[in-house]
Amino acid sequence: MNLNRKLRMGMVGGGRGAFIGSVHRMAAALDGQIELTAGCFSADAEKSRLSGADLRLDPARVYGTYQEMAKREAALPAGQRIDFVSIVTRNNTHVAIAKAFLEAGFNVICDKPVAFNLAEARKLKAIVQKSGKVFALTHNYTGYPMVKEAREWVRAGKLGQLLKVVVEYPQGYAITAIAGGEGKIANWRMDPSIAGISNCMADIGTHATNLARFITGLEIEELCADLNTFIPGRLLDDDGTCLLRFKGGARGLLFASQISSGDENNLNIRVWGTQGSLQWHQENPDELIWKAVNEPHQIHRRGNSYLAPITQKYSRTPFGHPEAFIEAFANVYRAAADAIADVQSGKPLPKNPEYPTIDAGLEGMAFIESVVKSSKAGAKWVKFPRL
Amino acid sequence: MNLNRKLRMGMVGGGRGAFIGSVHRMAAALDGQIELTAGCFSADAEKSRLSGADLRLDPARVYGTYQEMAKREAALPAGQRIDFVSIVTRNNTHVAIAKAFLEAGFNVICDKPVAFNLAEARKLKAIVQKSGKVFALTHNYTGYPMVKEAREWVRAGKLGQLLKVVVEYPQGYAITAIAGGEGKIANWRMDPSIAGISNCMADIGTHATNLARFITGLEIEELCADLNTFIPGRLLDDDGTCLLRFKGGARGLLFASQISSGDENNLNIRVWGTQGSLQWHQENPDELIWKAVNEPHQIHRRGNSYLAPITQKYSRTPFGHPEAFIEAFANVYRAAADAIADVQSGKPLPKNPEYPTIDAGLEGMAFIESVVKSSKAGAKWVKFPRL
Amino acid sequence: MNLNRKLRMGMVGGGRGAFIGSVHRMAAALDGQIELTAGCFSADAEKSRLSGADLRLDPARVYGTYQEMAKREAALPAGQRIDFVSIVTRNNTHVAIAKAFLEAGFNVICDKPVAFNLAEARKLKAIVQKSGKVFALTHNYTGYPMVKEAREWVRAGKLGQLLKVVVEYPQGYAITAIAGGEGKIANWRMDPSIAGISNCMADIGTHATNLARFITGLEIEELCADLNTFIPGRLLDDDGTCLLRFKGGARGLLFASQISSGDENNLNIRVWGTQGSLQWHQENPDELIWKAVNEPHQIHRRGNSYLAPITQKYSRTPFGHPEAFIEAFANVYRAAADAIADVQSGKPLPKNPEYPTIDAGLEGMAFIESVVKSSKAGAKWVKFPRL
Amino acid sequence: MNLNRKLRMGMVGGGRGAFIGSVHRMAAALDGQIELTAGCFSADAEKSRLSGADLRLDPARVYGTYQEMAKREAALPAGQRIDFVSIVTRNNTHVAIAKAFLEAGFNVICDKPVAFNLAEARKLKAIVQKSGKVFALTHNYTGYPMVKEAREWVRAGKLGQLLKVVVEYPQGYAITAIAGGEGKIANWRMDPSIAGISNCMADIGTHATNLARFITGLEIEELCADLNTFIPGRLLDDDGTCLLRFKGGARGLLFASQISSGDENNLNIRVWGTQGSLQWHQENPDELIWKAVNEPHQIHRRGNSYLAPITQKYSRTPFGHPEAFIEAFANVYRAAADAIADVQSGKPLPKNPEYPTIDAGLEGMAFIESVVKSSKAGAKWVKFPRL
Repeated sequence: MNLNRKLRMGMVGGGRGAFIGSVHRMAAALDGQIELTAGCFSADAEKSRLSGADLRLDPARVYGTYQEMAKREAALPAGQRIDFVSIVTRNNTHVAIAKAFLEAGFNVICDKPVAFNLAEARKLKAIVQKSGKVFALTHNYTGYPMVKEAREWVRAGKLGQLLKVVVEYPQGYAITAIAGGEGKIANWRMDPSIAGISNCMADIGTHATNLARFITGLEIEELCADLNTFIPGRLLDDDGTCLLRFKGGARGLLFASQISSGDENNLNIRVWGTQGSLQWHQENPDELIWKAVNEPHQIHRRGNSYLAPITQKYSRTPFGHPEAFIEAFANVYRAAADAIADVQSGKPLPKNPEYPTIDAGLEGMAFIESVVKSSKAGAKWVKFPRL
Repeated sequence: MNLNRKLRMGMVGGGRGAFIGSVHRMAAALDGQIELTAGCFSADAEKSRLSGADLRLDPARVYGTYQEMAKREAALPAGQRIDFVSIVTRNNTHVAIAKAFLEAGFNVICDKPVAFNLAEARKLKAIVQKSGKVFALTHNYTGYPMVKEAREWVRAGKLGQLLKVVVEYPQGYAITAIAGGEGKIANWRMDPSIAGISNCMADIGTHATNLARFITGLEIEELCADLNTFIPGRLLDDDGTCLLRFKGGARGLLFASQISSGDENNLNIRVWGTQGSLQWHQENPDELIWKAVNEPHQIHRRGNSYLAPITQKYSRTPFGHPEAFIEAFANVYRAAADAIADVQSGKPLPKNPEYPTIDAGLEGMAFIESVVKSSKAGAKWVKFPRL
Repeated sequence: MNLNRKLRMGMVGGGRGAFIGSVHRMAAALDGQIELTAGCFSADAEKSRLSGADLRLDPARVYGTYQEMAKREAALPAGQRIDFVSIVTRNNTHVAIAKAFLEAGFNVICDKPVAFNLAEARKLKAIVQKSGKVFALTHNYTGYPMVKEAREWVRAGKLGQLLKVVVEYPQGYAITAIAGGEGKIANWRMDPSIAGISNCMADIGTHATNLARFITGLEIEELCADLNTFIPGRLLDDDGTCLLRFKGGARGLLFASQISSGDENNLNIRVWGTQGSLQWHQENPDELIWKAVNEPHQIHRRGNSYLAPITQKYSRTPFGHPEAFIEAFANVYRAAADAIADVQSGKPLPKNPEYPTIDAGLEGMAFIESVVKSSKAGAKWVKFPRL
Repeated sequence: MNLNRKLRMGMVGGGRGAFIGSVHRMAAALDGQIELTAGCFSADAEKSRLSGADLRLDPARVYGTYQEMAKREAALPAGQRIDFVSIVTRNNTHVAIAKAFLEAGFNVICDKPVAFNLAEARKLKAIVQKSGKVFALTHNYTGYPMVKEAREWVRAGKLGQLLKVVVEYPQGYAITAIAGGEGKIANWRMDPSIAGISNCMADIGTHATNLARFITGLEIEELCADLNTFIPGRLLDDDGTCLLRFKGGARGLLFASQISSGDENNLNIRVWGTQGSLQWHQENPDELIWKAVNEPHQIHRRGNSYLAPITQKYSRTPFGHPEAFIEAFANVYRAAADAIADVQSGKPLPKNPEYPTIDAGLEGMAFIESVVKSSKAGAKWVKFPRL
């Protein structure tokens, strides 16, 4: 990071008990380049205050509303005010908060899905473009070094022409809801007024499609989705499967589920080409598998000198000293922080940012709307929208 | 096997260089209960003769045509003639050969797919029923002990209500055809006049659907299939994906491929229910995995005393002494041999045979016709036929 | 096998309920080149008779004593009498039986350990050499194709200079003896009058050292062993560990155990050289792992065209159609059968037999005597005897 | 951490290019409870200054010598001076630096091995005891949640009486030294004037023995070690194997290596008891395997509710979101930070600290001296010293 000081981070959301907020904070802290300086940790002002105290923040920098935070931070001297804000609230609030901070002159790192629907996301894109600020979306799985390696393989033509992509994301935690045992984390995701038109596909299906897009570069041309709601009484999907046709002729398959009992966070992807295939599993993230006909299978492992420079750049420990979820998340922060430091120093935005951008956000929203549309029509094929 | 002598086996097909014929012979030989006694190993009489000599058969029992074989074997005294015939020829000849032997009074073990099309298969079923003989179809993957264990789990309700089935069968050998390098084994499978309307789905898709049916007992209600032909110049599918809706509400997904570079014979299945899930991989067949929310994952291994009696019955070696493909294949022969021995002793056919029957053959043909119909209509949903 | 008829096998031992006898019979039957023709299946004549009936043998070829069998088989015409005998009795009887059959003009396949002690084994070697017959010892783990591949790697110098060998063989079945629950299979192995001076090291330690010797070609120069008897009341070892120094400077480590609760038959070996290392696990036998610094790990899999010719020769099914314990065992029979067919046709014995010979037997006995000697001396270093 | 402010950390060592220093900093930063405030990053004052600037420290808090740092930090007001120092220098300097800071009133976190030899370590223990301060040794592998779970299993008697321990730590990076290609990280470890009497056993053998001790609680009674120097021209061991006898009758085996080509950081441990066994692999750290006779194998995974409270306490992300090396390292810092915060608030030291203490340091030094003594005597048994 080209800056002779730490970046100052603000956070909106992520109060006591919130899982993803604490992940964002660890990811930001890991490299010692970012310090949490301000926050509005809850829509409940008292909870925000208590959370700020937990985090040992100056009480003067802990706010009761995000609007107040944007305004008062913007009024601070340049040497004190935050450099960027992390937004880790619920889906339906992302756009309004991002808008407030972008328009107040702040860079933004935002959790996914980016918006409540595609129309909102399109509006946000215009705001981002106008702002000239960094807008990074935490599709954190793209931060894994071996996911970057996979992308480099495809880019270098190692797989030949791509033929087939299978990406799957089974989780099983929601199955306990059948017996009434599900935790609160899942509850708001099942509420259409907060989560939007999809639960499972919005929450994890978007990670799966983003991962496939990141590694292969392929664009979906049309899809056919069969979404299911297995937990009685729910309004949104908790499982679904999707056939994909990509531009250029490759075919694909995506499934995501929250009722796959015994699966934890079992995101994985396989890509086959004319010259060979790759395979990556999120729960074993330091390995990338290469398989080709008439060759021994290969296991490429993070930390080795045979990996691409970009893979090595986003690696922190030597081979055999495993890295995992938090380090991958921190890589999104690292890439965004590099860009934010540049912007704060008056340098231009990166041309090919290593962090996911608002465009990934639009693709995710288009995916959600397409799979829901297809499924509601009885699992018919629908064209993927132009973005 | 309740018989104080070995069963005498005849074989049609399986001449020099044929892979599956030699597997059938090893499977038949393994338990020392069956001896190969006669054969018509090729449509080419000279090749048949040479193959018989390789196998050290009495030349008088090696025939130039299957018709001659059926006729002359039937004319031998009861103490000499074969007890059953194994049919290991190409798809389009199974029904005629089976008919000839059944009507000549012989039991039949037949390779899959059972027929050239569903109509043929229905006719064969009538012949089988009229014959009162054993007709066993070598859906050999159901012979694996841990596949039987999986079925027992489902039957016992261990998984609760079934929600989702994912069965996949990627192979990669055909990818070499892109560079002209594919072996002859694949060639006739690509010829519609021999293989019928499908290559990949007929050859291995039927194994996948049979495996799902065997373990879960679920019947397909409708399906939506997207078949592909990636190898230029081919007339039949070499890859395909299929969404499944089962009677009773469970959903499924099946894919099969011959162009998945680096995959060998990677059949595997996952079944999720409300109480837990199972997972089985053909390339690691002695293990059956159990996963459920809030429980350690479990690996159940062949040869242990905690397994179901039927699993133990079809096991030959103690735990840790792995069994594999040939032993599983031999289990189909073992089950069929038990029934044949009974029939030859005047006892009735088994009510719940452990070998796959003509009904599995009809289901396979219905699957082939359904996926082709769906795919040709642009991957539309089609109802699975009544059988 | 260069013979226009099947080989006729006799068996000594392996009556009802014996595990290893049935494995030998399956291994012999698999390729359709050997037929079981005669036997003395138990020292109990009635049990021998019943076992022969189970196996559907001609009662005239089922004998009450091995002496009678050797004598009467030798008196049969050449076209009827057995070509070889399989000896699957307890350790202390191997030499006497082998002697009887070798001196009666028969080839021998014998279970391991070859003898009750090294002195006996040396005498047997003289008898074998004098006989001009095949004597094959069923160190069956050398029959695995990927074990042969490992040996080819070492021979070809792929690993460079060998530095270190770790071979381990934990089993856990005997732990139940603590609660009195052990099966009979283990009982005679614990009786010094039958098993000799060692239980665990004799039964499985010899497999481990044979495997290391087979793959690496290294000869032990000296060793230091710490044997244990954890099950109360036992006279022989049920666990042990051994440091090895090989001629030429490589170092090694061997451990074997019957009280490693939860391990099944977990034989595995790792060999490191200056250029790279190999790893093979008996419970996953179709894979051979290659690891070297600054290279992706590789998994070599049976059935592929990149393997050595000898590996492919001892393979029966294509890649992805797993082979396992019985097929490996059958490979010892296949190699021995090839040699027996030659001997029976008047051809010479093979110069470099692919089956383990009496020399492997002597090495095994020397290993047993050395580890016991070392351990009794308080785990001191002892020189390995010259053989 | 019971403190309403962040702890202030100083660091000695860890300048530009040092691997372990950066790991300590990431580990300290992860939870947002510690901030790096001061440092003497190199014995080269200019390098120390530049490293401090890289880390965006106040130049006034960057020192040229550790002596100066101890003195000047001690002179700062309580609200400014560091709370503790992290020592990440070479082995031979640990004790002097620790002494300086302890005697200046600071808590200490120190890299391992704790000292140059056992005598030094004993002296340091006296200083630590006198100081009343926290002294934590970064045997970081004990920070893995599933290692803590393993210890809880042993403590709870889940394994029954312990019989056998196998701990291994093969690395392969040094093999490149044969061709002159080894990196500088290894160089000082091979220098007896810096590293002491051992390289491999001191560097990683101590981790292995510490891990075994942590999980099992067993104390070594005597050992027999065979150390090797395979890389020509070296003065210290790069490989070694060790037989262990524990107090109470359990037996063990430890090996460590830097020339195991293709191994990365392959620390793993297996412990067998009368009731079952456990297995843990550092390169797959979120899993702990349970195996017992006549039971399915079990894979226990971090993040699940069935784990012990202490395991859950040291976990940061939900199941399926893997944690790894840095998080485990951070757990040592977390435990030490809790104790430091208490000490700084006037509370007593913890009675059963979750961080490794000076006693682990003494055990490590005793292990080093014992294995070297045994090996030099020709791999003879030596008694483990009383500590």
